[in-house]
Parts: sequence; C-alpha cells; structure tokens
Amino acid sequence: MTTLPVTQISLPPGFIDLGMGNPDFDLLPMELLHRSAETYFAAGDRRTLQYGAEAGDGNFRRALADFLSAAGGSRVDPGLLFVTAGASSALDLICSLYTRPGDVIFAEEPSYFLALRLFADHGLRVIPIPMDEDGLQIDALEERLAESRPKFVYTIPTFQNPSGRTLSQPRRDKLVELAQRHDFLVVADEVYQSLHYGQEPPQPFAAFAADVEQVVSVNSFSKILAPGLRLGWVQAHAKVIGRLAGSGLLDSGGGMNPFTSAIVRGMVESGGLAENIAHLRLEYARRLQALDAALRWHIPAAEYSLPQGGFFFWVRLPGVDAGGLRRQAQAFEVGIRQGALFSSRNGMQDYVRLSFCFYGEEDLEQGVIRLRNYLESGV
Amino acid sequence: MTTLPVTQISLPPGFIDLGMGNPDFDLLPMELLHRSAETYFAAGDRRTLQYGAEAGDGNFRRALADFLSAAGGSRVDPGLLFVTAGASSALDLICSLYTRPGDVIFAEEPSYFLALRLFADHGLRVIPIPMDEDGLQIDALEERLAESRPKFVYTIPTFQNPSGRTLSQPRRDKLVELAQRHDFLVVADEVYQSLHYGQEPPQPFAAFAADVEQVVSVNSFSKILAPGLRLGWVQAHAKVIGRLAGSGLLDSGGGMNPFTSAIVRGMVESGGLAENIAHLRLEYARRLQALDAALRWHIPAAEYSLPQGGFFFWVRLPGVDAGGLRRQAQAFEVGIRQGALFSSRNGMQDYVRLSFCFYGEEDLEQGVIRLRNYLESGV
Repeated sequence: MTTLPVTQISLPPGFIDLGMGNPDFDLLPMELLHRSAETYFAAGDRRTLQYGAEAGDGNFRRALADFLSAAGGSRVDPGLLFVTAGASSALDLICSLYTRPGDVIFAEEPSYFLALRLFADHGLRVIPIPMDEDGLQIDALEERLAESRPKFVYTIPTFQNPSGRTLSQPRRDKLVELAQRHDFLVVADEVYQSLHYGQEPPQPFAAFAADVEQVVSVNSFSKILAPGLRLGWVQAHAKVIGRLAGSGLLDSGGGMNPFTSAIVRGMVESGGLAENIAHLRLEYARRLQALDAALRWHIPAAEYSLPQGGFFFWVRLPGVDAGGLRRQAQAFEVGIRQGALFSSRNGMQDYVRLSFCFYGEEDLEQGVIRLRNYLESGV
Repeated sequence: MTTLPVTQISLPPGFIDLGMGNPDFDLLPMELLHRSAETYFAAGDRRTLQYGAEAGDGNFRRALADFLSAAGGSRVDPGLLFVTAGASSALDLICSLYTRPGDVIFAEEPSYFLALRLFADHGLRVIPIPMDEDGLQIDALEERLAESRPKFVYTIPTFQNPSGRTLSQPRRDKLVELAQRHDFLVVADEVYQSLHYGQEPPQPFAAFAADVEQVVSVNSFSKILAPGLRLGWVQAHAKVIGRLAGSGLLDSGGGMNPFTSAIVRGMVESGGLAENIAHLRLEYARRLQALDAALRWHIPAAEYSLPQGGFFFWVRLPGVDAGGLRRQAQAFEVGIRQGALFSSRNGMQDYVRLSFCFYGEEDLEQGVIRLRNYLESGV
C-alpha cells in the first residue's frame, strides 16, 4: 500500500533541516483554535456554511479590520479587505486576473522560490532586480523600466524570504510613486510584517492601499497562526478588491474560506490572536539569538546581517558551493537551502538560507555544529 | 458605514427566488459538523495545522476513499484522490495547468454559467455542444472534433446544471474512447452524483480514473454537506494527480484545505456524512415532487422532463422571453434564472431554470403560484 503523507514535511529521524521554512509543530496553537471553535459552534450561525460573500464573511472582515487597526495604529477599512485561502491562493488569483502568459514581472533577486514556481506556472517572465541591505534597489528597478514594463513587481518588503532584509521607507515611497507613474501593480507579500523581534519595520504597503490603485498587500495567517488553515487576506484599493471578488472563481465558489474564517474570528475578536503573535515574537526572538550565537561561535567565517524579524538568516559562506553543500551535508544529518534556489538566474551560489522557525534553541545549535563538522571535514 | 454581506445570497424579505441554486440554510448540518470537530480537537493532531501534503492529508484521503468505495461498490485508491478547496478551485487549477488563453474547450449547451465565467477568466474559447434527453450529443461532439481539438470537454454528466439531464452509459463510454483517441481531457463535474431521488445514475466518470489518463472527475462537499467549507476532491489518473499536486500553487501553499478536511474526516469515518446524504435525498425528493405537482397544477403549459436527482428543473415556457420574465416577475416577488444565462451563444431564450434546493414545499408552491400570476397578468 502506498504511504500517504499528512504534511509537506518529510525528514529522516534525527535529521536537522536548518533550511526548513515551516513553523515548529509545537508552536501551532491547537488549544487556541479549539477555544475559538467552541465560540463559533456556540453561536451556530449557519450562514457561515453557505456560499460566502465573494470578498469574505463581512463579520470576519470587520473583526480583522479592527485587529489590523489596533496593531498598525491607523484605521483599516473592512471594505478593503478580501479574505483568501492563504498567500499562495492570492498570488495565483492575481496572476490569473492581471497577467497573461509571456507577460513580464519584476521580482527581487533573491526571492521566495515557490512564488517563482507559481509565476512560472502562469507563463510569466521574471526579471530579477538586485537587492542590497535596504532591500530592492529602486534605482536598478527604474533602469529596467526603461526596457520593459512589468505587469507587477513582486516584493516581500519586510524580513524578506530568503534575505531577511527590509525595504526602507524612502524606497517604499519611491516604488509606489513609480507604480503610479508607470501603472504597474506592487504585489507586496507582507506575511512577516508582524513578526519583528527587534527594530519595528516601516509601515506595510497595506497602508497605501486605501489611496493607491496600484498597491496590493498580500497577507496570511500561516506565519502568525497555522499554515494548515489556508487562510489569509488581501488589503488593497477598492478597485482591486472589486476585481478579485468579481472574478469567475469567486462568483462560482463564493468566498474562499468562510468556515475557517468563522472559526478563527473568535480569537481575532477575543485577543487570542494578538497573544499568539506576542508569544511567537518572544519565542522566535530567543531562537534567532540562539542561531546567531551558534553561527558566530562555530562558523565564524559565515557572513550575514542579523535579521530583525521573520524566519530567515541569509548567510554567505565564501568559497562554498551551497548546492554541493546541501547534497553532501546530508551525511552529517543537517540540511540547508542553497542560495541558487532563490535566484531567477541561478546566482547566489555561495549563499545558504537558514531558518530558526522549525527548531528549538538546542537543535539549532546542534544543526550548526553538524554544519561546521561538514565544512571542516573537507568532504 | 458600508454593509458587508456574510453570504452570496441577497434577497428582499418575502421574495421567493425559484432560480436559487444554493442549499437551504436549514439543511446545512451545523450539529454534525460540531460533533465531527469535537472528534478532531479531542485527537489534537497538530500535523493538520502544518503545511499539508500537496494532494491532501493522507488520513483524509484514506477515509474518503473508504467512503467512496462503500458508496460506489468498487474499490477507490486513495492515491488517486486530490483534496481541493471546492469544485471551482479544482476547475481553476485545471485551467491554469492544462490551458493557455485562446485555447478551445467544449462544453454542454446549456451549461453551468459560473463555470463558463471561470473559463472566460482564463481566456478560453468555449465551443457549445448540443444536448438531448440523454445528455451531451456525442455525435455532434465528434463532428466538432474534425474542426478543432479541445484541451478539455467540460461536462456535468449527472443531473446536469441547469438541464437536470444525465449522460447515458453508452455515451460515457464513447466520450472516454474519443478522449483517448484524440487526447483531450474529460473534466467531469460530478457534484450531483450522489443526490439521486429516483433511478440511480450510471457509474460516475470517476470510475474510469484509475485506468484512463484523460478523465478528471471533480467533486465537492458543497452539495452533500456545506458550500462554506470550500472542500472537494478530484479523482483522476495518477498522472493527473501528480500534475495537480506538483504545481507551484500546491508546492507553495501545501494541500488546499488541511484543517477543514481534518474536521470533516470524523463524520466521513463515523457514517455521519452517509446519513446526511440519506437525509438530503429524502428531503430533496419531497421538494422535487412538490415543485413538479405545483407546476403541473398551476402552469400546465410548462414543458420539462422530471429530473431524477440534483437541484434543477429545466423548464420550457413556449413563447415566453425568459429574460424579460425574470425582470418583470420581480414585481410579483418571484425569481427564476433565464435560460440564456446558461448558453455560450445567447440561446435557450424560452427556458428557465427552477431549483428545489433552497425552499421547502410550501414556498415552492407559493413561488409557482406567483409565477403563474405573473404569466396570467399579461404584463
């Protein structure tokens, strides 16, 4: 009989995969969800089992808007929120509605490799735009605009995957200005926005959404609650929300996740979600420090900037072929993600992405020790 | 403040919309879901909150395969099931992976208008194939094949929306043979398969899936449980399942609805789902009879074949412009869906789709009386 896996994770026992970008099982809040589900079933509102409103359940959108308003310090209009089945489903819908195969889009170099795969499925041509410590290089982007106009620029502006970098406020303003002038969308994948452990990041692109037609902020409960929920949201201009909600997919199936959003609503309203995020910040901050300390102690040659949030260290190992490292380090029971995975042009050969989301402090150090053992083995 | 709706349904008080294809709120089984959720939370398996396996949670796929095996009388391989976020999400994914804008597909004339909208969003050209009492006319389809090869044929083979017709077994065999010979997909939307109230329908296209690469059966919990769950499945050849599960969307987000499927799993295993379907069959059978009796008594000029299952009566009102009827009958507080909505070529002008899923027996008769009053008013 075939084995049918439950999750995407498949690791040999004892293996430490420092490349893993999934949250730790221990941090998935089953109890919190249970309490929220109890609230839901006690109310017993059958409307949440019907074909849902295309933009999402109005009660959930209001609860989410209140939550975002409190978190961000400025009033979010629930009418500008569109409930999704996670960030990937949002990106997929945006590609379906706003692009055609052969169209050009711009993306950061490096960028999230699974988003790049999704864009490839839609036949899009990705033009990579270099980054530096302040994120996407807007000057370089502006130069590319002279050659080709993208349908959209895909950016992970805050605690980027994989680089951990955050786009500075002046560059955000400039990008929005360019988007308005040249009429392309800024698709900002802001799923790490609230996971900051040090310096707070700039305002999200979501803050532009009310006024600027070209800005689409994509967000998700996957990092702040649980990926298995497949629940997320888009915050965008009314024109964009109307286009998404008016699509054939939404007209046919109704809102993307009415039942789950209704279950989650209780914890959004009760403060449970905010507490969960506060808990994650503390826990991830400890893990970040543990990975940093382990790298500095065991692999002093590793070059990186300390991220202020998110899940990832983007580490340069000078002179190391990271693809070969990934294959060969398996014998040492340790995994990484090679930089080339995140490149649209097979670059970033001596970079690795390390994550501190899936393992506790001891395993993180143990993983780094294994990595050092491999590097020192001369294999 | 803007009003934010909860569901797709928006009806003035007292209005009876006989065109409504949504299930009755009273038939959405909140209690059954609550019990199933209790089982889920008691088990507390955090894996169901993680990024799920791309084809769906293995435990859910096994439970669903057992259920389908028992219902259909032949063994279903859980490895050939792919869990979706409802039939619309499956159709959308199939369009993304198997078509490009400008491609041709074939669809029944008439067909489900929201699927036609979804195909339009993907830039597909729909060639309508006529139907008769035995469903899609395969001879006509074969003639069209001489002119253009479709990427797929979209069919609702059983208790079709809107016509209520069921494709005969010989035609099913012939369609599969043509699909193999000319290498196009048969995308069979089989969401009404288990909702039969009279004669049992032929075996679903799902029965071909193990052996035939060209058959994709799309199914859903929307009609047999609740649309708000956004949960469904595809049953198809291993090659198709591999393609769907290997897409960028699934790789990025993981399985489409791990949490909801885990909640529903309990009732699939306990027999609760089977009981719900049995209950729906009894209830819908009564409603079907009520609508039939009301039409025969109050509108004897109405021409239709009595459906054996599903949700819909496809009624010809000779000499009536159904689009005009829909607009003008509003004053009589009654709604229908005009036939032209279901046509890819603006045909079916004197047909209306009536549904018996959303209202109880008394309201169904009252709706028909209002329709008669309008027709006799000479407006």
